[in-house]
Amino acid sequence: MQFDQYVARVNTKLDYYLTTQGSLTEAMRYSVLAGGKRFRPILSYCVADMFGSNLEQVDSSSCAVEFIHAYSLIHDDLPAMDDDDIRHNQPSCHKRFDEAQAILAGDGLQALAFEVLVNDPLLNSQIKIDLLSTLTHAAFEMAEGQAIDLSIVDRTVDINLLESMHRKKTGALLSCAVDLGAVVAQCSEQDRHTLKVFSQAIGLAYQIQDDVLDVETPVGVLGKQQHSDSEKNKPTYPAIIGLQASKEAYQALYLQASECLNELSVDAKILQLLTQKLQTRTF
Amino acid sequence: MQFDQYVARVNTKLDYYLTTQGSLTEAMRYSVLAGGKRFRPILSYCVADMFGSNLEQVDSSSCAVEFIHAYSLIHDDLPAMDDDDIRHNQPSCHKRFDEAQAILAGDGLQALAFEVLVNDPLLNSQIKIDLLSTLTHAAFEMAEGQAIDLSIVDRTVDINLLESMHRKKTGALLSCAVDLGAVVAQCSEQDRHTLKVFSQAIGLAYQIQDDVLDVETPVGVLGKQQHSDSEKNKPTYPAIIGLQASKEAYQALYLQASECLNELSVDAKILQLLTQKLQTRTF
Repeated sequence: MQFDQYVARVNTKLDYYLTTQGSLTEAMRYSVLAGGKRFRPILSYCVADMFGSNLEQVDSSSCAVEFIHAYSLIHDDLPAMDDDDIRHNQPSCHKRFDEAQAILAGDGLQALAFEVLVNDPLLNSQIKIDLLSTLTHAAFEMAEGQAIDLSIVDRTVDINLLESMHRKKTGALLSCAVDLGAVVAQCSEQDRHTLKVFSQAIGLAYQIQDDVLDVETPVGVLGKQQHSDSEKNKPTYPAIIGLQASKEAYQALYLQASECLNELSVDAKILQLLTQKLQTRTF
Repeated sequence: MQFDQYVARVNTKLDYYLTTQGSLTEAMRYSVLAGGKRFRPILSYCVADMFGSNLEQVDSSSCAVEFIHAYSLIHDDLPAMDDDDIRHNQPSCHKRFDEAQAILAGDGLQALAFEVLVNDPLLNSQIKIDLLSTLTHAAFEMAEGQAIDLSIVDRTVDINLLESMHRKKTGALLSCAVDLGAVVAQCSEQDRHTLKVFSQAIGLAYQIQDDVLDVETPVGVLGKQQHSDSEKNKPTYPAIIGLQASKEAYQALYLQASECLNELSVDAKILQLLTQKLQTRTF
């Protein structure tokens, strides 16, 4: 299964980039290498692969986007933020180490993400700048999205604000993962735009689905506490528009994503497969 | 006075880069625009100016290095870290806002630092990559240095470990500020190396001097709590080698810095002046 190969590939590279660092390494390795679906690296590899790119040129992008994702989870789990004690079926970073080390591990991972891209010897400077442009922007939007997320706890919000929050908090980095693959592949502007529409659809679908799974999935499978969002009085799609309407909303978005893949100049079979896989995921 | 012009210049640019952002902006602006000596931007401007560069090409570097510095102060002040309630004579970011917003403001500033460099329309891609290479590395080292700093609280350490911690925690970003100026100026490898030796000397001198000033300066002048390090049982130079020896150590380092400036291929009057100014600072 091709996706498993991407996961194995990125896990090897993540381990490599985290090997040679100093005293912060232990906490960074603990969180990054604990697991995770590697959804963002898979997206980058899929897109570049689809256009026939050399996957070695995608490794730094895949690792960079995963480092940003990992740092965001470490900081989100902090007591001052979402206060989650479990992540990937193990104690969160600040529980295994302490809050200070968790803050610094996140800080270090953000710096490392950009450093890995900047120093990739397989990419020319212009491609690196394009990659960094999309990644720095997404990283900033993600922090903004998390700030909005915290500001709406205990508040009644409408579906538009919730959607706007998710588009920044989760959507920006997912779109970025797709865009990184498109930049490495040097695809046409038209294809890059189509992929953006695709990634925005699956980004939002993924998040609505997360809200649904958060209600329906047992804790052991999810790898974090069930009902963790609704119990914190965070607005969720099921809470605002109901469970059935939420399911229909994300299915419609996955369908939209799948349809727009037909407009690409290359055979998008692998992204179609990924979209189906996401649509039917149970955790 | 030229240094004041650099400070005015960077303050305008910092304000500009923080104007157009979204919901995180308030906390970021609060901390960044509260003041500070702008020592790192001054260094970048001085170096580039000395080689005759157009200062407009240095603005993004000066702002980027100050954003990294500002983010580090916000995170360092957090309760889980140094737990400081006052910064620049006003409540620290987490006191004025809350811990979550302070963590996110820091995270956002780190992303913004790199974003500002990546998107500078006045620099070519290769120069940007060289700037980003030095800044990402320094940002990572700074996080490592802070981790070492926290690990040696309440511990008896020797002067070598203390020095190594300071070289990462403070020295790396000061050296980087000098290097950013050198990269924008496209000076020779020889000059760049000389400037590295210079910056490492003033970086360490500055930190030892900070330890001394922390003992000797009243709180109103310092803008933060006096004795804040020694009261937290953090090792300091005066605590390990004594106050007099600490003063001699930083004076010797400033002398070394001043001497190595004579090796540069250009007239380094402005950096000589800055070194004298630092040497005689009282806060």
